[in-house]
Amino acid sequence: MDFSSKLLEQAVDEVSQLPGIGKRTALRLVLHLLKQPESQTVQLSEALLNLRKNIKLCENCFNISDTQLCEICANTSRNSEIVCVVEDIRDVMAIENTNQYRGLYHVLGGKISPMDGIGPSQLTIKPLIDKVQAGKVEELIFALSSTLEGDTTNFYIFKQIERLEVKTSTIARGISVGDELEYADEITLGRSITNRIPFENSLKN
Amino acid sequence: MDFSSKLLEQAVDEVSQLPGIGKRTALRLVLHLLKQPESQTVQLSEALLNLRKNIKLCENCFNISDTQLCEICANTSRNSEIVCVVEDIRDVMAIENTNQYRGLYHVLGGKISPMDGIGPSQLTIKPLIDKVQAGKVEELIFALSSTLEGDTTNFYIFKQIERLEVKTSTIARGISVGDELEYADEITLGRSITNRIPFENSLKN
Repeated sequence: MDFSSKLLEQAVDEVSQLPGIGKRTALRLVLHLLKQPESQTVQLSEALLNLRKNIKLCENCFNISDTQLCEICANTSRNSEIVCVVEDIRDVMAIENTNQYRGLYHVLGGKISPMDGIGPSQLTIKPLIDKVQAGKVEELIFALSSTLEGDTTNFYIFKQIERLEVKTSTIARGISVGDELEYADEITLGRSITNRIPFENSLKN
Repeated sequence: MDFSSKLLEQAVDEVSQLPGIGKRTALRLVLHLLKQPESQTVQLSEALLNLRKNIKLCENCFNISDTQLCEICANTSRNSEIVCVVEDIRDVMAIENTNQYRGLYHVLGGKISPMDGIGPSQLTIKPLIDKVQAGKVEELIFALSSTLEGDTTNFYIFKQIERLEVKTSTIARGISVGDELEYADEITLGRSITNRIPFENSLKN
Protein backbone atom coordinates (compact mmCIF):
# COMPACT_ATOMS: atom_id res chain seq x y z
CA MET A 1 0.00 0.00 0.00
CA ASP A 2 1.16 3.46 -0.92
CA PHE A 3 0.23 6.09 1.63
CA SER A 4 0.19 9.81 0.98
CA SER A 5 1.03 10.50 4.63
CA LYS A 6 3.78 9.11 6.84
CA LEU A 7 1.69 9.70 9.96
CA LEU A 8 -1.15 7.67 8.48
CA GLU A 9 1.26 4.93 7.42
CA GLN A 10 2.74 4.65 10.91
CA ALA A 11 -0.68 4.44 12.54
CA VAL A 12 -1.84 1.78 10.06
CA ASP A 13 1.39 -0.18 10.56
CA GLU A 14 0.95 -0.24 14.32
CA VAL A 15 -2.74 -1.19 14.25
CA SER A 16 -2.11 -3.94 11.69
CA GLN A 17 0.27 -5.65 14.13
CA LEU A 18 -2.72 -6.67 16.23
CA PRO A 19 -3.78 -10.30 15.65
CA GLY A 20 -6.39 -10.79 12.93
CA ILE A 21 -6.14 -7.21 11.66
CA GLY A 22 -4.67 -6.71 8.20
CA LYS A 23 -3.61 -3.49 6.50
CA ARG A 24 -7.02 -2.80 4.98
CA THR A 25 -8.89 -3.26 8.24
CA ALA A 26 -6.28 -1.17 10.03
CA LEU A 27 -6.77 1.64 7.51
CA ARG A 28 -10.54 1.45 8.00
CA LEU A 29 -10.16 1.66 11.79
CA VAL A 30 -7.71 4.55 11.62
CA LEU A 31 -9.89 6.51 9.17
CA HIS A 32 -12.83 5.93 11.51
CA LEU A 33 -10.86 7.45 14.39
CA LEU A 34 -10.02 10.46 12.20
CA LYS A 35 -13.72 11.10 11.60
CA GLN A 36 -14.51 10.94 15.32
CA PRO A 37 -13.76 13.71 17.84
CA GLU A 38 -10.15 13.86 18.97
CA SER A 39 -11.23 12.91 22.49
CA GLN A 40 -12.04 9.35 21.39
CA THR A 41 -8.50 8.74 20.16
CA VAL A 42 -7.08 10.29 23.32
CA GLN A 43 -9.26 8.08 25.53
CA LEU A 44 -8.39 4.96 23.56
CA SER A 45 -4.65 5.64 23.76
CA GLU A 46 -4.77 6.50 27.43
CA ALA A 47 -6.83 3.44 28.35
CA LEU A 48 -4.32 1.16 26.60
CA LEU A 49 -1.28 2.88 28.14
CA ASN A 50 -2.87 2.94 31.59
CA LEU A 51 -3.67 -0.75 31.43
CA ARG A 52 -0.20 -1.72 30.17
CA LYS A 53 1.61 0.39 32.78
CA ASN A 54 -0.52 -0.30 35.84
CA ILE A 55 -1.63 -3.86 35.26
CA LYS A 56 -1.28 -6.15 38.28
CA LEU A 57 -1.64 -9.89 38.64
CA CYS A 58 -3.32 -11.36 41.70
CA GLU A 59 -0.51 -12.71 43.87
CA ASN A 60 -2.39 -15.90 44.59
CA CYS A 61 -4.03 -16.94 41.31
CA PHE A 62 -2.22 -14.67 38.77
CA ASN A 63 -5.47 -13.42 37.29
CA ILE A 64 -5.54 -9.81 36.03
CA SER A 65 -6.58 -7.63 38.92
CA ASP A 66 -6.39 -4.02 40.13
CA THR A 67 -5.62 -5.16 43.67
CA GLN A 68 -2.95 -7.40 45.21
CA LEU A 69 -5.49 -10.15 45.79
CA CYS A 70 -8.23 -10.49 43.18
CA GLU A 71 -11.91 -10.41 44.14
CA ILE A 72 -12.26 -14.16 43.77
CA CYS A 73 -9.26 -15.03 45.97
CA ALA A 74 -10.29 -12.39 48.52
CA ASN A 75 -13.80 -13.85 48.79
CA THR A 76 -13.74 -15.90 51.98
CA SER A 77 -17.01 -17.67 51.16
CA ARG A 78 -15.29 -19.53 48.32
CA ASN A 79 -13.67 -22.93 48.82
CA SER A 80 -9.92 -22.27 48.65
CA GLU A 81 -9.10 -25.99 48.64
CA ILE A 82 -10.40 -26.53 45.12
CA VAL A 83 -8.28 -24.93 42.40
CA CYS A 84 -9.23 -24.79 38.74
CA VAL A 85 -6.22 -24.49 36.37
CA VAL A 86 -7.00 -22.28 33.36
CA GLU A 87 -5.07 -20.63 30.57
CA ASP A 88 -6.10 -16.98 30.88
CA ILE A 89 -8.63 -14.50 32.23
CA ARG A 90 -11.13 -15.31 29.46
CA ASP A 91 -11.49 -18.83 30.82
CA VAL A 92 -12.02 -17.47 34.35
CA MET A 93 -14.76 -15.18 33.01
CA ALA A 94 -16.37 -18.04 31.09
CA ILE A 95 -16.46 -20.36 34.12
CA GLU A 96 -17.63 -17.57 36.45
CA ASN A 97 -20.52 -16.94 34.06
CA THR A 98 -21.83 -20.46 34.63
CA ASN A 99 -22.37 -19.77 38.38
CA GLN A 100 -21.52 -23.47 38.95
CA TYR A 101 -18.09 -23.13 40.52
CA ARG A 102 -17.26 -21.88 44.00
CA GLY A 103 -13.57 -22.73 44.22
CA LEU A 104 -10.53 -20.65 43.26
CA TYR A 105 -8.53 -20.45 40.04
CA HIS A 106 -4.93 -20.63 38.98
CA VAL A 107 -4.18 -18.72 35.76
CA LEU A 108 -1.20 -20.21 33.89
CA GLY A 109 -0.85 -17.33 31.43
CA GLY A 110 -0.62 -19.69 28.44
CA LYS A 111 0.07 -23.27 27.49
CA ILE A 112 3.36 -25.10 26.98
CA SER A 113 4.05 -24.68 23.28
CA PRO A 114 7.59 -25.33 22.00
CA MET A 115 6.49 -24.13 18.54
CA ASP A 116 5.85 -20.66 19.95
CA GLY A 117 8.86 -20.82 22.25
CA ILE A 118 6.76 -21.09 25.41
CA GLY A 119 8.21 -23.44 28.03
CA PRO A 120 7.07 -24.25 31.58
CA SER A 121 9.25 -21.47 33.03
CA GLN A 122 7.28 -18.76 31.19
CA LEU A 123 4.07 -19.94 32.81
CA THR A 124 3.02 -19.82 36.47
CA ILE A 125 3.51 -23.58 36.93
CA LYS A 126 6.12 -23.26 39.70
CA PRO A 127 3.83 -21.29 42.06
CA LEU A 128 1.07 -23.84 41.39
CA ILE A 129 3.32 -26.78 42.35
CA ASP A 130 4.42 -24.83 45.46
CA LYS A 131 0.79 -24.29 46.41
CA VAL A 132 0.07 -28.01 46.09
CA GLN A 133 3.24 -28.98 47.97
CA ALA A 134 2.26 -26.68 50.81
CA GLY A 135 -0.79 -28.92 51.23
CA LYS A 136 -3.24 -26.08 50.61
CA VAL A 137 -5.03 -27.80 47.74
CA GLU A 138 -7.39 -30.74 47.98
CA GLU A 139 -8.47 -30.97 44.36
CA LEU A 140 -6.95 -29.62 41.15
CA ILE A 141 -9.31 -29.29 38.18
CA PHE A 142 -7.62 -29.09 34.78
CA ALA A 143 -9.67 -26.84 32.50
CA LEU A 144 -7.29 -26.15 29.60
CA SER A 145 -8.56 -26.48 26.06
CA SER A 146 -8.09 -30.01 24.75
CA THR A 147 -5.45 -29.31 22.14
CA LEU A 148 -1.98 -30.79 21.82
CA GLU A 149 -0.60 -27.88 23.86
CA GLY A 150 -3.34 -28.09 26.48
CA ASP A 151 -2.87 -31.84 26.95
CA THR A 152 0.92 -31.42 27.17
CA THR A 153 0.55 -28.77 29.85
CA ASN A 154 -1.93 -30.87 31.84
CA PHE A 155 0.40 -33.85 31.70
CA TYR A 156 3.47 -31.82 32.65
CA ILE A 157 1.74 -30.50 35.76
CA PHE A 158 0.23 -33.92 36.57
CA LYS A 159 3.66 -35.60 36.47
CA GLN A 160 5.03 -33.16 39.03
CA ILE A 161 2.22 -33.61 41.53
CA GLU A 162 1.17 -37.24 41.07
CA ARG A 163 3.04 -38.34 44.22
CA LEU A 164 1.56 -35.56 46.32
CA GLU A 165 -1.68 -35.90 48.18
CA VAL A 166 -4.02 -34.10 45.85
CA LYS A 167 -7.02 -35.20 43.84
CA THR A 168 -6.85 -34.29 40.14
CA SER A 169 -9.74 -34.05 37.73
CA THR A 170 -10.45 -32.64 34.32
CA ILE A 171 -13.59 -30.98 33.01
CA ALA A 172 -15.94 -33.34 31.15
CA ARG A 173 -15.75 -33.52 27.37
CA GLY A 174 -18.89 -34.48 25.53
CA ILE A 175 -21.63 -33.41 23.17
CA SER A 176 -22.70 -29.81 23.77
CA VAL A 177 -26.16 -29.35 25.20
CA GLY A 178 -28.53 -28.90 22.26
CA ASP A 179 -26.19 -30.42 19.66
CA GLU A 180 -27.25 -33.18 17.25
CA LEU A 181 -25.36 -36.47 17.70
CA GLU A 182 -24.92 -37.06 13.97
CA TYR A 183 -22.79 -33.93 13.57
CA ALA A 184 -20.47 -34.58 16.54
CA ASP A 185 -16.91 -35.74 15.86
CA GLU A 186 -16.04 -39.34 16.73
CA ILE A 187 -13.55 -38.51 19.49
CA THR A 188 -15.98 -36.34 21.41
CA LEU A 189 -18.85 -38.79 20.95
CA GLY A 190 -16.60 -41.70 21.96
CA ARG A 191 -15.51 -39.93 25.12
CA SER A 192 -19.04 -39.00 26.02
CA ILE A 193 -20.04 -42.66 25.87
CA THR A 194 -17.00 -43.90 27.80
CA ASN A 195 -17.51 -41.28 30.49
CA ARG A 196 -21.28 -41.62 30.71
CA ILE A 197 -22.87 -40.50 33.99
CA PRO A 198 -25.81 -41.85 36.03
CA PHE A 199 -29.04 -40.48 34.56
CA GLU A 200 -30.14 -38.98 37.90
CA ASN A 201 -27.07 -36.75 37.85
CA SER A 202 -28.10 -35.19 34.57
CA LEU A 203 -31.34 -34.00 36.11
CA LYS A 204 -29.57 -31.76 38.60
CA ASN A 205 -28.94 -28.75 36.39
CA MET B 1 -19.12 -9.24 30.60
CA ASP B 2 -17.81 -9.12 34.13
CA PHE B 3 -14.23 -7.96 34.43
CA SER B 4 -11.98 -8.51 37.40
CA SER B 5 -10.12 -5.27 36.65
CA LYS B 6 -11.40 -1.74 35.99
CA LEU B 7 -8.32 -0.93 33.90
CA LEU B 8 -8.98 -3.93 31.68
CA GLU B 9 -12.64 -3.04 31.41
CA GLN B 10 -11.86 0.53 30.32
CA ALA B 11 -9.40 -0.62 27.67
CA VAL B 12 -11.85 -3.19 26.32
CA ASP B 13 -14.65 -0.59 26.29
CA GLU B 14 -12.57 1.85 24.27
CA VAL B 15 -11.32 -0.73 21.77
CA SER B 16 -14.82 -2.13 21.26
CA GLN B 17 -16.02 1.29 20.09
CA LEU B 18 -14.10 0.77 16.87
CA PRO B 19 -16.33 -0.34 13.97
CA GLY B 20 -16.68 -4.09 13.55
CA ILE B 21 -15.00 -4.89 16.87
CA GLY B 22 -17.17 -6.39 19.60
CA LYS B 23 -16.37 -6.94 23.26
CA ARG B 24 -14.89 -10.39 22.75
CA THR B 25 -12.58 -9.31 19.95
CA ALA B 26 -11.59 -6.23 21.94
CA LEU B 27 -10.67 -8.44 24.92
CA ARG B 28 -8.60 -10.67 22.64
CA LEU B 29 -6.73 -7.65 21.22
CA VAL B 30 -6.12 -6.11 24.65
CA LEU B 31 -4.86 -9.42 26.11
CA HIS B 32 -2.56 -9.74 23.11
CA LEU B 33 -1.07 -6.29 23.86
CA LEU B 34 -0.55 -7.33 27.49
CA LYS B 35 1.52 -10.31 26.36
CA GLN B 36 3.71 -8.16 24.11
CA PRO B 37 6.49 -5.86 25.33
CA GLU B 38 5.27 -2.54 26.73
CA SER B 39 6.95 -0.72 23.84
CA GLN B 40 4.37 -2.04 21.39
CA THR B 41 1.48 -0.50 23.30
CA VAL B 42 3.41 2.76 23.67
CA GLN B 43 4.14 2.88 19.93
CA LEU B 44 0.55 2.08 19.02
CA SER B 45 -0.84 4.78 21.32
CA GLU B 46 1.67 7.37 20.16
CA ALA B 47 1.10 6.64 16.47
CA LEU B 48 -2.66 7.11 16.90
CA LEU B 49 -2.29 10.30 18.97
CA ASN B 50 0.32 11.71 16.61
CA LEU B 51 -1.86 11.09 13.59
CA ARG B 52 -4.96 12.57 15.22
CA LYS B 53 -3.18 15.70 16.45
CA ASN B 54 -0.98 16.47 13.46
CA ILE B 55 -3.13 15.32 10.58
CA LYS B 56 -3.38 17.78 7.69
CA LEU B 57 -5.59 17.82 4.62
CA CYS B 58 -4.15 18.91 1.25
CA GLU B 59 -5.48 22.44 0.70
CA ASN B 60 -6.32 21.71 -2.93
CA CYS B 61 -7.83 18.19 -2.96
CA PHE B 62 -8.48 17.58 0.77
CA ASN B 63 -6.67 14.25 0.73
CA ILE B 64 -4.80 13.26 3.92
CA SER B 65 -1.28 14.62 3.62
CA ASP B 66 1.71 15.58 5.76
CA THR B 67 2.30 18.71 3.68
CA GLN B 68 0.13 21.70 2.70
CA LEU B 69 -0.15 20.41 -0.85
CA CYS B 70 -0.25 16.62 -1.27
CA GLU B 71 2.21 14.79 -3.54
CA ILE B 72 -0.38 14.32 -6.26
CA CYS B 73 -1.44 17.98 -6.39
CA ALA B 74 2.19 19.12 -6.19
CA ASN B 75 3.17 16.93 -9.14
CA THR B 76 3.34 19.33 -12.12
CA SER B 77 3.42 16.48 -14.65
CA ARG B 78 -0.18 15.59 -13.82
CA ASN B 79 -3.13 17.11 -15.67
CA SER B 80 -4.72 19.55 -13.23
CA GLU B 81 -7.72 20.15 -15.50
CA ILE B 82 -9.17 16.70 -14.91
CA VAL B 83 -10.55 16.16 -11.42
CA CYS B 84 -11.80 12.86 -10.10
CA VAL B 85 -14.35 13.19 -7.26
CA VAL B 86 -13.94 10.44 -4.64
CA GLU B 87 -15.21 9.72 -1.16
CA ASP B 88 -12.01 9.22 0.80
CA ILE B 89 -8.30 8.43 0.72
CA ARG B 90 -8.94 4.72 0.16
CA ASP B 91 -10.48 5.48 -3.23
CA VAL B 92 -7.51 7.68 -4.15
CA MET B 93 -5.17 4.81 -3.25
CA ALA B 94 -7.25 2.32 -5.25
CA ILE B 95 -7.28 4.49 -8.39
CA GLU B 96 -3.58 5.35 -8.04
CA ASN B 97 -2.82 1.62 -7.91
CA THR B 98 -4.27 1.17 -11.40
CA ASN B 99 -1.64 3.51 -12.93
CA GLN B 100 -4.34 4.55 -15.43
CA TYR B 101 -5.12 8.04 -14.20
CA ARG B 102 -2.94 11.13 -14.50
CA GLY B 103 -5.36 13.84 -13.36
CA LEU B 104 -5.98 15.20 -9.87
CA TYR B 105 -8.53 14.23 -7.21
CA HIS B 106 -11.07 15.93 -5.01
CA VAL B 107 -11.76 14.10 -1.76
CA LEU B 108 -15.28 14.79 -0.45
CA GLY B 109 -14.74 13.19 2.95
CA GLY B 110 -17.96 11.19 2.76
CA LYS B 111 -21.28 11.02 0.94
CA ILE B 112 -24.52 12.91 1.52
CA SER B 113 -26.45 10.69 3.90
CA PRO B 114 -29.40 12.19 5.80
CA MET B 115 -29.74 8.91 7.74
CA ASP B 116 -26.29 9.46 9.26
CA GLY B 117 -26.84 13.21 9.61
CA ILE B 118 -24.33 14.06 6.88
CA GLY B 119 -25.40 16.98 4.69
CA PRO B 120 -23.56 18.80 1.88
CA SER B 121 -22.06 21.32 4.30
CA GLN B 122 -20.10 18.62 6.13
CA LEU B 123 -18.40 17.59 2.90
CA THR B 124 -15.94 19.54 0.76
CA ILE B 125 -18.53 20.24 -1.93
CA LYS B 126 -18.31 24.05 -1.70
CA PRO B 127 -14.56 24.18 -2.52
CA LEU B 128 -15.20 21.82 -5.45
CA ILE B 129 -17.89 24.10 -6.90
CA ASP B 130 -15.57 27.10 -6.37
CA LYS B 131 -12.82 25.29 -8.26
CA VAL B 132 -15.15 24.59 -11.17
CA GLN B 133 -16.55 28.15 -11.15
CA ALA B 134 -13.03 29.55 -11.30
CA GLY B 135 -12.75 27.77 -14.65
CA LYS B 136 -9.84 25.60 -13.53
CA VAL B 137 -11.54 22.31 -14.33
CA GLU B 138 -12.19 20.89 -17.77
CA GLU B 139 -13.60 17.51 -16.82
CA LEU B 140 -15.09 16.21 -13.59
CA ILE B 141 -15.12 12.43 -13.14
CA PHE B 142 -17.57 11.10 -10.55
CA ALA B 143 -16.09 8.03 -8.89
CA LEU B 144 -18.33 7.54 -5.85
CA SER B 145 -19.68 4.09 -5.06
CA SER B 146 -23.01 3.49 -6.78
CA THR B 147 -25.22 3.40 -3.72
CA LEU B 148 -28.20 5.57 -2.91
CA GLU B 149 -25.91 7.97 -1.04
CA GLY B 150 -23.30 8.00 -3.80
CA ASP B 151 -25.86 8.70 -6.51
CA THR B 152 -27.46 11.45 -4.40
CA THR B 153 -24.11 13.12 -3.89
CA ASN B 154 -23.24 12.89 -7.60
CA PHE B 155 -26.59 14.41 -8.53
CA TYR B 156 -26.32 17.19 -5.93
CA ILE B 157 -22.95 18.26 -7.32
CA PHE B 158 -24.08 17.85 -10.91
CA LYS B 159 -27.10 20.13 -10.35
CA GLN B 160 -24.85 22.92 -9.10
CA ILE B 161 -22.43 22.82 -11.99
CA GLU B 162 -24.58 21.81 -14.94
CA ARG B 163 -24.74 25.39 -16.28
CA LEU B 164 -21.00 25.87 -15.97
CA GLU B 165 -18.60 24.99 -18.74
CA VAL B 166 -17.34 21.66 -17.50
CA LYS B 167 -17.54 18.17 -18.91
CA THR B 168 -18.84 15.59 -16.43
CA SER B 169 -18.38 11.85 -16.61
CA THR B 170 -18.74 8.87 -14.33
CA ILE B 171 -16.64 5.74 -14.12
CA ALA B 172 -17.95 2.80 -16.17
CA ARG B 173 -20.09 0.19 -14.43
CA GLY B 174 -20.04 -3.29 -15.86
CA ILE B 175 -19.03 -6.89 -15.38
CA SER B 176 -15.69 -7.23 -13.58
CA VAL B 177 -12.82 -8.56 -15.65
CA GLY B 178 -12.74 -12.34 -15.16
CA ASP B 179 -16.33 -12.61 -13.88
CA GLU B 180 -18.88 -15.06 -15.31
CA LEU B 181 -21.89 -13.39 -16.96
CA GLU B 182 -24.39 -15.82 -15.44
CA TYR B 183 -23.59 -14.69 -11.90
CA ALA B 184 -23.77 -10.94 -12.58
CA ASP B 185 -26.75 -8.99 -11.26
CA GLU B 186 -29.26 -7.70 -13.84
CA ILE B 187 -28.61 -3.99 -13.26
CA THR B 188 -24.87 -4.28 -13.81
CA LEU B 189 -25.30 -6.54 -16.84
CA GLY B 190 -27.97 -4.24 -18.25
CA ARG B 191 -25.74 -1.20 -17.88
CA SER B 192 -22.77 -2.95 -19.42
CA ILE B 193 -24.86 -3.71 -22.53
CA THR B 194 -26.34 -0.21 -22.76
CA ASN B 195 -22.91 1.38 -22.36
CA ARG B 196 -21.05 -1.02 -24.65
CA ILE B 197 -17.82 0.29 -26.15
CA PRO B 198 -16.20 -0.19 -29.57
CA PHE B 199 -14.29 -3.49 -29.56
CA GLU B 200 -11.04 -1.79 -30.56
CA ASN B 201 -11.11 0.22 -27.33
CA SER B 202 -11.16 -2.92 -25.20
CA LEU B 203 -7.85 -4.01 -26.74
CA LYS B 204 -6.01 -0.99 -25.35
CA ASN B 205 -5.35 -2.19 -21.84
